[in-house]
Amino acid sequence: MSKNSSNIMALVPKTSNKRETVCIFGTGDFGRALGHKLIQSGYPVVFGSRSPWPSSLIPKDAEVLSHAEAAQKAAIIIIAIQRQHYDFLASLEETLHGKVLVDISNNLKINQYPESNAKYLAQLVPSARVVKAFNTVSAWALQSGTLDASRQVFVCGDDTEAKQMVMDIVRALGLTPLDQGSLLAAREIENYPLQLFPLWKLPFFLSLGLTTFFFFYCLVRDVIYPCVYENKDYSFYLAISIPNRICPIMALVLLALVYLPGVLAAIIQLYRGTKYSRFPDWLDRWMLCRKQLGLVALAFASLHAIYTLVIPIRYYVRWTVEDRTISQALNNKTTPFDNTNGWLSDSYLALGILGFFLFVLLGITSLPSVSNNVNWREFRFVQSKLGYLTLILCTAHTLVYGGKWFLSPSSYRWYLPNAYMLSLIIPCVVLVVKFVLILPCLDKQLTQIRQGWERNPQYSELSNHIINKSAV
Amino acid sequence: MSKNSSNIMALVPKTSNKRETVCIFGTGDFGRALGHKLIQSGYPVVFGSRSPWPSSLIPKDAEVLSHAEAAQKAAIIIIAIQRQHYDFLASLEETLHGKVLVDISNNLKINQYPESNAKYLAQLVPSARVVKAFNTVSAWALQSGTLDASRQVFVCGDDTEAKQMVMDIVRALGLTPLDQGSLLAAREIENYPLQLFPLWKLPFFLSLGLTTFFFFYCLVRDVIYPCVYENKDYSFYLAISIPNRICPIMALVLLALVYLPGVLAAIIQLYRGTKYSRFPDWLDRWMLCRKQLGLVALAFASLHAIYTLVIPIRYYVRWTVEDRTISQALNNKTTPFDNTNGWLSDSYLALGILGFFLFVLLGITSLPSVSNNVNWREFRFVQSKLGYLTLILCTAHTLVYGGKWFLSPSSYRWYLPNAYMLSLIIPCVVLVVKFVLILPCLDKQLTQIRQGWERNPQYSELSNHIINKSAV
Amino acid sequence: MSKNSSNIMALVPKTSNKRETVCIFGTGDFGRALGHKLIQSGYPVVFGSRSPWPSSLIPKDAEVLSHAEAAQKAAIIIIAIQRQHYDFLASLEETLHGKVLVDISNNLKINQYPESNAKYLAQLVPSARVVKAFNTVSAWALQSGTLDASRQVFVCGDDTEAKQMVMDIVRALGLTPLDQGSLLAAREIENYPLQLFPLWKLPFFLSLGLTTFFFFYCLVRDVIYPCVYENKDYSFYLAISIPNRICPIMALVLLALVYLPGVLAAIIQLYRGTKYSRFPDWLDRWMLCRKQLGLVALAFASLHAIYTLVIPIRYYVRWTVEDRTISQALNNKTTPFDNTNGWLSDSYLALGILGFFLFVLLGITSLPSVSNNVNWREFRFVQSKLGYLTLILCTAHTLVYGGKWFLSPSSYRWYLPNAYMLSLIIPCVVLVVKFVLILPCLDKQLTQIRQGWERNPQYSELSNHIINKSAV
Repeated sequence: MSKNSSNIMALVPKTSNKRETVCIFGTGDFGRALGHKLIQSGYPVVFGSRSPWPSSLIPKDAEVLSHAEAAQKAAIIIIAIQRQHYDFLASLEETLHGKVLVDISNNLKINQYPESNAKYLAQLVPSARVVKAFNTVSAWALQSGTLDASRQVFVCGDDTEAKQMVMDIVRALGLTPLDQGSLLAAREIENYPLQLFPLWKLPFFLSLGLTTFFFFYCLVRDVIYPCVYENKDYSFYLAISIPNRICPIMALVLLALVYLPGVLAAIIQLYRGTKYSRFPDWLDRWMLCRKQLGLVALAFASLHAIYTLVIPIRYYVRWTVEDRTISQALNNKTTPFDNTNGWLSDSYLALGILGFFLFVLLGITSLPSVSNNVNWREFRFVQSKLGYLTLILCTAHTLVYGGKWFLSPSSYRWYLPNAYMLSLIIPCVVLVVKFVLILPCLDKQLTQIRQGWERNPQYSELSNHIINKSAV
Repeated sequence: MSKNSSNIMALVPKTSNKRETVCIFGTGDFGRALGHKLIQSGYPVVFGSRSPWPSSLIPKDAEVLSHAEAAQKAAIIIIAIQRQHYDFLASLEETLHGKVLVDISNNLKINQYPESNAKYLAQLVPSARVVKAFNTVSAWALQSGTLDASRQVFVCGDDTEAKQMVMDIVRALGLTPLDQGSLLAAREIENYPLQLFPLWKLPFFLSLGLTTFFFFYCLVRDVIYPCVYENKDYSFYLAISIPNRICPIMALVLLALVYLPGVLAAIIQLYRGTKYSRFPDWLDRWMLCRKQLGLVALAFASLHAIYTLVIPIRYYVRWTVEDRTISQALNNKTTPFDNTNGWLSDSYLALGILGFFLFVLLGITSLPSVSNNVNWREFRFVQSKLGYLTLILCTAHTLVYGGKWFLSPSSYRWYLPNAYMLSLIIPCVVLVVKFVLILPCLDKQLTQIRQGWERNPQYSELSNHIINKSAV
Repeated sequence: MSKNSSNIMALVPKTSNKRETVCIFGTGDFGRALGHKLIQSGYPVVFGSRSPWPSSLIPKDAEVLSHAEAAQKAAIIIIAIQRQHYDFLASLEETLHGKVLVDISNNLKINQYPESNAKYLAQLVPSARVVKAFNTVSAWALQSGTLDASRQVFVCGDDTEAKQMVMDIVRALGLTPLDQGSLLAAREIENYPLQLFPLWKLPFFLSLGLTTFFFFYCLVRDVIYPCVYENKDYSFYLAISIPNRICPIMALVLLALVYLPGVLAAIIQLYRGTKYSRFPDWLDRWMLCRKQLGLVALAFASLHAIYTLVIPIRYYVRWTVEDRTISQALNNKTTPFDNTNGWLSDSYLALGILGFFLFVLLGITSLPSVSNNVNWREFRFVQSKLGYLTLILCTAHTLVYGGKWFLSPSSYRWYLPNAYMLSLIIPCVVLVVKFVLILPCLDKQLTQIRQGWERNPQYSELSNHIINKSAV
């Protein structure tokens, strides 16, 4: 639809307009794009410029005047110039008295200046009413109508009426205004477009670190050990075998780490006997990025699934099978079918398939458009009940896969256990503690605490944070 | 972005506010969370409480007064107390005269009381204007700004102006109000947060029943029969072989059941000669959960795909292949390549792959955010044309898979045909009937009927339901 | 939730209404459905009809009058009749003076009439204020509340106030109005519901053409050549082998075609020394459908993945493996393990898996609800950085797959190189040119140009299109 909407947008209406004139300071890319869009939506637009003659780039229906003249024509002035050129606005103080100044600027670095650009503007022209808006919208998106990224426009300002006027314009342009409070919020709003997946940082670095550790662990056990002791070259394990050992480990560990903070929070609440005291900062941060942790775990699980399915196509595997078959045939010997092996092999595969299936289901329900369509009871049912079921299935998958090798001395090379054994520690701890927590006696107390009951009411005076409420 | 927005939200604006004061009765979790959020959005907030002294938990910028005093300060009063404590409100009747009372309560069970809480409140304080709202929003979500689940706020009430006032507040909080009509709707709105996937119930129980049936059917044929007659232990079939027999059957049957009601509706409309008579209730219910049926079918199809891809990794399969190869080598005998087998094997795989691919495509287009971006013509093209193509491909996949075994007596154990034969009945019926329905003579008449033509106009008097229109 | 909302909607409120009366001309399906919905939202509704007696199909709370009488009762009149019956409205000119006429009509074909229906209506009744709206909404969706497809209502009109009144009604019905400008936009809006995936047309026909070409190319090389020279029947290759040769080729070529226009645009900008001159039309069109191209490429890549995973299950493959094993066993000869082969096989698989994984990730981030939740920096990071990484991985996958056969004469049949060699041309060109473009000297100049610098300022006078700005 983007192409059409872009065409539709291109039609300049000849309307009996009643919208208020909007003034734009600056004729750069963003100023012009916003001007175009405003004219299409029926606003008369006047540009304020140092060089007030019409340029071929400026929309035809817009006037171009000097800054002072343009400012007088409108109640709302959009400041589409860069912060370092704001100074001259101080000289227009008189003209700008009581006007709504919309700061749309962005910086090149996070926290580049001590105060936000909007605050700086408000200090320069104290008699104007400054509103921060539009800085998250791209000029290209505005112009072409292909708002692939967000339609949301964060708005903040100290003057409610001025904010309302700007939000009305935002709505008229077909965008969604989000009121973010006072001008203090401008700092966050200005940092927003510079952020690169802030909530993904912790999960990313955590999994990077763990992956590196397990990579060298497996390298030592599976490539260097046979090279040293058996003089065999297994370096090609680096391409598939070792990644396919790391991926399931990472998936299981990260999935367990999604549920660990909830269990820790429950223990803290039980110990303190109240929900009104604040959790430690690290726990808060951890809880906020659980969704991201889970999605990274899902990525590893998906890679594990593909790596596993690809096994029979590998030259190494095909060669091994053929070689074994031929040598058996030449030795005239057949192995009888082992029913236990049949059971073990099939059940760890089945457990893995079901676990992966539920995992993907969890991933799908965490898509914004899906989670928007369920109520809280449904959302928690999926994320909590189904989530634990997934954890149980994946842990069982690993346990059965390990099977009889757990105690076999041959799986300890240089006293290093097989890597999957390490991966079982956290999931098993989480599952055992969770199992203890849902014992009726503890569960009942926990429910009471979460409904507001306090073992030791004075506690609540320590903190006015209620954010921990039902977070777990 | 949730972390930022939470930070942004946490900034309390020092604004030159012009918003109206909002009063909140009750200082529980939800009352406080809503108070916080209202203050952030620039509303002065006053709490009405039995114990009117400031607690450390209550937002600092809010006043705490007695109920009567607080009520006098605001035109809108949010009742954040539980239904069983509503009684005292009757005594405030005079103070509450003409005020907008916002009922935000929920119950613990569906239809717990004879009348909705909002209706009960309206009866207690008949001179107030009661609006139902906010009950689907979680206090935790409100507080933390992480509105992972829905941003939608259902609003209903008998007074349009009061409803408008509440909807303005909802919008100011960054949520989306949905007008649900008069206070009669409160009953449905109060039940909504207690529901657990209501539209999924029918598909869930249907597939549970069918799965159970086919499980025992396959158990008898594939495990018990060989155990009795050949004395072989195939119990490990339970893990993968039998699930991988049930999944494709369920996927095919459920997919056919998605298209069966449309075919039935067309027959009913053709028979009655009008579209203005209501379908039987069971057909209406069936048609409403077609999307869910289709998604359950897709889940079974996905499981079938993974179960199938995993086949060459299974110990049982590897053993069988090696055993056969060795015995052939020992007997010095090779089987020549059978071109027909090559064709059959490749084409049923190809049909299955294409069918599954289209099936996943259908699933993706049913994601809310995707279906929001297509127009009706496109939506119906995908769901109807591509849907039938999927059904045809999947049916053909099963038919070719069956191949030459259809008539072989060895596939009838204890007179039970192979399970996949049973699964073909409904899809074949649907496809044949659909094929008949698109014959020009019938299709033309059906199109006329759906455009409003009636064979026997008196019929339409029987019913004023027009809901069946283009449902098919 | 659809079932409930449908139930909720069905409740007719007995409200103390303050909404304005709405008049609907025409008692057909859409008129009645809209009437129902308006009544539920608290609007008094009056129908204007040729036969002004209440029918059982018309909502009970609505009045039915003659056209003239009905029109007098309301300021807004919704014209729910077909364009060919508009004529009589001219005779009501006097009654309709100054009224808001809402044209909701659709046509059967794109650009069926010389002027849009709304324009035609405005010409018939020049003294009325015509607004186009609601034509993209289906009556069935309106009635049942199951707005599976879009909730968006495109609105356009020359009178801002009239448009505002209609947009208020749209909002009251729980839909989202999108202001599309003046009545000139009505033409596009009327065409919109008739479109069938307009942006998908170019990618679809392009991939259809390429697929056909590669199909016959592979057919000649892999089926006809062996048939002619070796007298072998490989016709069953048609089902899986040849599709699995075409799919990866198509995926790689289309993925490269996604990034080619960006590279071309950069070259054009560097050559012209400005960003203010318009790109050729074909480049603009190409750039607008890059997302669709990428998704088609992803579809081919997914098919390739499944086709590949299915290989070990194929009868042909199983027979080949067994046959080779048996003949080796009979000849008492074993092939030693070839480490280079192990490396090659594992690394092309690993490259393919990682490339496919990133490809799926790109696909997921292009879902509307996901891309709405990222800012521009994140969106461009994913679509550009990750996109090029995907292209590199997939190209490397193909190169390593080809491996040592590149120069082997046996891979040239009838002087035709293997198909995958052809597929490498475009990706390699794109990657090489891109590599040149990110050399510091060129990259610096390009960045300057995109920030507005011009080598030859007079150029900019040639065009007032700024749409090319940051498109690349």
